[in-house]
Amino acid sequence: MASNFFGELFRITTFGESHGSAIGVVIDGCPAGLSITKEEIDEALALRQPGRNKFVSPRSEKDGVEILSGLYEGKTTGAPIALLIRNQNADSSPYTAIQNLYRPGHANFTYLEKYGLFDPRGGGRASARETVARVAAGAVAKKLIGHFGIHCVAFVAEIGGIGIDADLTDLATLREKTYSSPIFCPDERQAEEMMRKIEVVKAEGDSLGGILACVAHLPAGLGDPVYQKLEAKLAAAMLSLPATKGFEIGEGFAAARLRGSEHNDSFIANQGKTSLATNRAGGTLGGISTGAPLYFRVAFKPTSSIQKPQSTVTLQGEPATLQHPPSARHDPCVAIRAVPIVEAMVALVLADVLLFNRCATLHQVSGCELPGPKGPGFQRPDKKELTFI
Amino acid sequence: MASNFFGELFRITTFGESHGSAIGVVIDGCPAGLSITKEEIDEALALRQPGRNKFVSPRSEKDGVEILSGLYEGKTTGAPIALLIRNQNADSSPYTAIQNLYRPGHANFTYLEKYGLFDPRGGGRASARETVARVAAGAVAKKLIGHFGIHCVAFVAEIGGIGIDADLTDLATLREKTYSSPIFCPDERQAEEMMRKIEVVKAEGDSLGGILACVAHLPAGLGDPVYQKLEAKLAAAMLSLPATKGFEIGEGFAAARLRGSEHNDSFIANQGKTSLATNRAGGTLGGISTGAPLYFRVAFKPTSSIQKPQSTVTLQGEPATLQHPPSARHDPCVAIRAVPIVEAMVALVLADVLLFNRCATLHQVSGCELPGPKGPGFQRPDKKELTFI
Amino acid sequence: MASNFFGELFRITTFGESHGSAIGVVIDGCPAGLSITKEEIDEALALRQPGRNKFVSPRSEKDGVEILSGLYEGKTTGAPIALLIRNQNADSSPYTAIQNLYRPGHANFTYLEKYGLFDPRGGGRASARETVARVAAGAVAKKLIGHFGIHCVAFVAEIGGIGIDADLTDLATLREKTYSSPIFCPDERQAEEMMRKIEVVKAEGDSLGGILACVAHLPAGLGDPVYQKLEAKLAAAMLSLPATKGFEIGEGFAAARLRGSEHNDSFIANQGKTSLATNRAGGTLGGISTGAPLYFRVAFKPTSSIQKPQSTVTLQGEPATLQHPPSARHDPCVAIRAVPIVEAMVALVLADVLLFNRCATLHQVSGCELPGPKGPGFQRPDKKELTFI
Amino acid sequence: MASNFFGELFRITTFGESHGSAIGVVIDGCPAGLSITKEEIDEALALRQPGRNKFVSPRSEKDGVEILSGLYEGKTTGAPIALLIRNQNADSSPYTAIQNLYRPGHANFTYLEKYGLFDPRGGGRASARETVARVAAGAVAKKLIGHFGIHCVAFVAEIGGIGIDADLTDLATLREKTYSSPIFCPDERQAEEMMRKIEVVKAEGDSLGGILACVAHLPAGLGDPVYQKLEAKLAAAMLSLPATKGFEIGEGFAAARLRGSEHNDSFIANQGKTSLATNRAGGTLGGISTGAPLYFRVAFKPTSSIQKPQSTVTLQGEPATLQHPPSARHDPCVAIRAVPIVEAMVALVLADVLLFNRCATLHQVSGCELPGPKGPGFQRPDKKELTFI
Repeated sequence: MASNFFGELFRITTFGESHGSAIGVVIDGCPAGLSITKEEIDEALALRQPGRNKFVSPRSEKDGVEILSGLYEGKTTGAPIALLIRNQNADSSPYTAIQNLYRPGHANFTYLEKYGLFDPRGGGRASARETVARVAAGAVAKKLIGHFGIHCVAFVAEIGGIGIDADLTDLATLREKTYSSPIFCPDERQAEEMMRKIEVVKAEGDSLGGILACVAHLPAGLGDPVYQKLEAKLAAAMLSLPATKGFEIGEGFAAARLRGSEHNDSFIANQGKTSLATNRAGGTLGGISTGAPLYFRVAFKPTSSIQKPQSTVTLQGEPATLQHPPSARHDPCVAIRAVPIVEAMVALVLADVLLFNRCATLHQVSGCELPGPKGPGFQRPDKKELTFI
Repeated sequence: MASNFFGELFRITTFGESHGSAIGVVIDGCPAGLSITKEEIDEALALRQPGRNKFVSPRSEKDGVEILSGLYEGKTTGAPIALLIRNQNADSSPYTAIQNLYRPGHANFTYLEKYGLFDPRGGGRASARETVARVAAGAVAKKLIGHFGIHCVAFVAEIGGIGIDADLTDLATLREKTYSSPIFCPDERQAEEMMRKIEVVKAEGDSLGGILACVAHLPAGLGDPVYQKLEAKLAAAMLSLPATKGFEIGEGFAAARLRGSEHNDSFIANQGKTSLATNRAGGTLGGISTGAPLYFRVAFKPTSSIQKPQSTVTLQGEPATLQHPPSARHDPCVAIRAVPIVEAMVALVLADVLLFNRCATLHQVSGCELPGPKGPGFQRPDKKELTFI
Repeated sequence: MASNFFGELFRITTFGESHGSAIGVVIDGCPAGLSITKEEIDEALALRQPGRNKFVSPRSEKDGVEILSGLYEGKTTGAPIALLIRNQNADSSPYTAIQNLYRPGHANFTYLEKYGLFDPRGGGRASARETVARVAAGAVAKKLIGHFGIHCVAFVAEIGGIGIDADLTDLATLREKTYSSPIFCPDERQAEEMMRKIEVVKAEGDSLGGILACVAHLPAGLGDPVYQKLEAKLAAAMLSLPATKGFEIGEGFAAARLRGSEHNDSFIANQGKTSLATNRAGGTLGGISTGAPLYFRVAFKPTSSIQKPQSTVTLQGEPATLQHPPSARHDPCVAIRAVPIVEAMVALVLADVLLFNRCATLHQVSGCELPGPKGPGFQRPDKKELTFI
Repeated sequence: MASNFFGELFRITTFGESHGSAIGVVIDGCPAGLSITKEEIDEALALRQPGRNKFVSPRSEKDGVEILSGLYEGKTTGAPIALLIRNQNADSSPYTAIQNLYRPGHANFTYLEKYGLFDPRGGGRASARETVARVAAGAVAKKLIGHFGIHCVAFVAEIGGIGIDADLTDLATLREKTYSSPIFCPDERQAEEMMRKIEVVKAEGDSLGGILACVAHLPAGLGDPVYQKLEAKLAAAMLSLPATKGFEIGEGFAAARLRGSEHNDSFIANQGKTSLATNRAGGTLGGISTGAPLYFRVAFKPTSSIQKPQSTVTLQGEPATLQHPPSARHDPCVAIRAVPIVEAMVALVLADVLLFNRCATLHQVSGCELPGPKGPGFQRPDKKELTFI
């Protein structure tokens, strides 16, 4: 079944295995006229790269993108944009020793159940390595939504039970604080406590889970009713990421413990503009954005690959112990590296709903100046304008 | 934008407004040869109907389905199955008084922002009334997956902070306990406490949120990698429901506070069969079912419509107070009525992934007579078992 | 498999069998703000109704539509528009005698091969009765594209080898001539000859094939590259109609016998506008509209149901003769009644590509005045304009 | 808009421009367990390569595929299969002289109208070079359908008005004759006449159109009702190819000139098997395969690029003459090189409908061990046969 694409109008299709020759993505549906450079994509890739410090896996993945198609003189042409990232460091020999074992928390069991065969080098398609394609495509999506003043920031909100409060009003500052932190956590003091805990747990050969938060500023009216609610698309996007176990928007699970009078956001009028007095809903009502900041959280399980020995069975059904060699490199907490990936997925969702929104009303479809076909020649009179971008 | 369909191979398209003439659904893609009766669908509809007792809204919706197409002599023919439920009790006069107000927690604000117009009778498409179509279609989906031994039960797991522990091993018993409870809660003692709390809060003109849990028994191998993970589809299905604020699978958000050595489920071998020793993952690994029970939870916000006065503004931007008349009928806790709806959505998701699974391998595509993948290495040892579904 | 929907952004899903209780369609994705009335849809249905004269089947189908959802005060709301047409005259008793026979030219053989069962009352889903849903939806699509100055007319171009030349420049006149003809043929003299031939063939218990032509006026730039070419979508739309055997655009098959120097349309400049000097291409280049009239033709086979006895076999494999009773009512030439159906399908295709076109360029996505989200409140400043339509 | 994908369950997404760095395709949905080699794909690519002789363009494109993902030890794993073909010979300098001109018969006019910008090197996405990706993917699709005994052959049926009769019963012989002909025409004598005509026309600086035919052997029951008819999918596939102007199945446009008694195919019983006595329908009834050979034809316009000078205008609207330099290399008849491309597209369509067919009935979904539809009335008498595919 075709299961490697995401989005409808702004659609990505990804390919490539953890230890194959390359990871790639085809972006189909990006509007023509958007400026985008290799450098912008490489910058995004640099953020998700491991090896930055001891809090993420020391694998060195120096990823650089090759733009195979879809740009001409630095602008998108409406043609599909294919981005290729070669796997530089795909040494699958560490997997030889364990390739005959079902790995707890990993997908080789279910892939074998489903497909009857499995590429044992690294995690194949199930590896987090696949997310490099999401980040590359997300860089293009961010450029597109940025053109419309839509921005998003993800950050570490909790690791190993240590949580933070973050100021969500100023996205630029939030982003700066987040990306200047070794663990993408904008609260410097709490971040230090998290790092201490990570070091302890890592020394024990174990791993930690965490919670990411994401905030986006966007206009009212994005998202669609019923089955295409904005929060439904976001939830699917987040649960499509490796290691995710939960999604909540606004007050989320805490809302289940509030009363209606506590949870409802009142409307207020201010200089002729109606908006919400509070934002417990997290930015949507009925699946459509309210104009208040979009706010949601994602739960990540602790890294499945740990140094501690684990009891398991072989593919042949014999009891066995999974013990990674001391040289194996694993993230002590996968949530950290997921920050730029969550951001990329949100950008992909928002790019898609932005394009969909152009079809919501006659007014939207018409635009304001485009007169539609008129007169004998059916010539667009303002053709020049089209080319200005 | 087309946003009123759900599923790909087993696809539903729903229509109808809360106070329009009818609600309906077209099921496109149900395999031919499935027996289904009007009575089976009506039974499912009866479960979601309000007015059963004081814990749900006393609106009397005696829904009966009209099967417009797709059946011949009691069996599906492969043609689309159209189901129509007339709105019997669509008195929209209570809404006249409030139709000029933005309603806190409701979608009339965002629909107006998006579409520039809004059907003010009831909640229109945003009303929970729409879910009657999901339940009708879900009855057909349940029949289909039941044919393959797949079953699911949803139930109230927490209301107003009062939670339960439930035995998930015997679905028949769990279902019986759930549906014999006035509030769909299988734990009789905790249910009584919940009901006491509901009565208190209702008397105060307020409402409560709640958490539903759902468990499904299904074979290993269902669901698809990367963007079509089973949990991603379930999350989207749940967040597409009115009033939902969160989704978690397995340990969910609690997993973020565990260590890898605590969270990983070990594999064990038993009489030549490999399975999981525990089920913290909640039934999937890498987006594909493990064969262990699928287990997830959904957070519902407290009912937005409450008797307490709420401050808001008019559509014209003037400050105003929303005060429902004493005669207005609202659910004190929407989570209760959502139980059969959640079950319906799970059945719809599982019907879809079941059909998709027939295309996963050559062996699956071939049926039993063609050999499928063979030879050394990474062969599923128990290939025969695959054919039982 | 879900196979009863058409279109992506302007999507229809149809249901109902020839001799079931009703035929219906759900339109999902129609922009909000479009005025549409029951009368407009009924008018469209009246055009396809048989029984107008002896050149079409004398079955009396007085179809009237029930609009179940999606309109409020005469305007679309963005919600799905469900249209229901009850089957008034669904006497399936004539089929009892022949329901044990494979019917030459009909689909009961292939449906049985595929599904293992078949609804023998009339043609079930394979009946041309299904097209009533297309015509109802097409009426809404025409209204939408008409708002943008896009119009189309289909007409009978050839019956039984008798062809016509038609003036395609003035669509209003072409439409008037077409619909004032008993056989939807704008050339009065040739139409008379066709009618004479039809009467002769009908008297012999036989039937005739025919060719329809269709012309549409639309702006340049509609349609999409590669796999979503405008002509590819039109070809699929036409070959999805019962009894169609071919599609050609512009010079079509005749183009295969021309040289490049004869077939290429030169470009000319006229008062600063570039257009085509001729229109052999039929309105597209590279799958995208040129602004010249869209022109294509569709081949219809002769009606499969004829009075003449035909040799066949029973479902059990015994040789048999299919002989319709003298009372059976069949169209002597199905192409005639297909005229409003072809028009409906073209309108559905053009509505879809029109919506898609809003996402082609940044300029299109932006519209000209909509500033996008700005400033702290993300309020659309021109909200009022949205409601004017 | 996403317009660069084809197929639903067996889905391809293609990318790359004529004179960019590479052309590629991602196959998403190929079942796991299929053996495929680089050599098999390269062989398919070799067939479409120009430069074989004087009847096709002398551009030398030595295409070799790089398999980037989706295979492990020679077998598909269920992961997306990415295939990359580098552009070896992408000298775009010949286009510099003409890049300021609208080119008759080409898409630069419509792309500029739609997108406001155009990659002027070669035809960009509109170039026939894009079809290399279709052929690569088609090689995988052919392997898949071949596994189920489904085969197809395309061939030149007419060039410049010179047509052939071909024996369609033995596909192996037909294929051999076709691919041993310099112009892919299985009738050696007529092929020689065509070649003489091509040489004359080429010497005059002009080009010729042509008609391809295609025949496929496949079981009954493939394809779907109403909007997903097999012929509708084939028509869309064919009209998505560059330079195509028409599609017809079976008798096609000639059917419009036959009577019902002439056109209907009778059913006959032979040793308990029911089949068609003739095959004027061309292999489908009601959009579903009959088991008789699928037969259709596709019209190609004459090559748009010719040596003869053509009058046109500049992008600025000034009258101009398009005169290719003597060194420019064009196919004298594009239909010839389209033969392996048509074959690839048919294979892609049939792979998709084959996978869809696994969801048609309970029996199909179940595999062989579940009983499927049973009981009296309208039962397919030969249910067992269904399982051979």
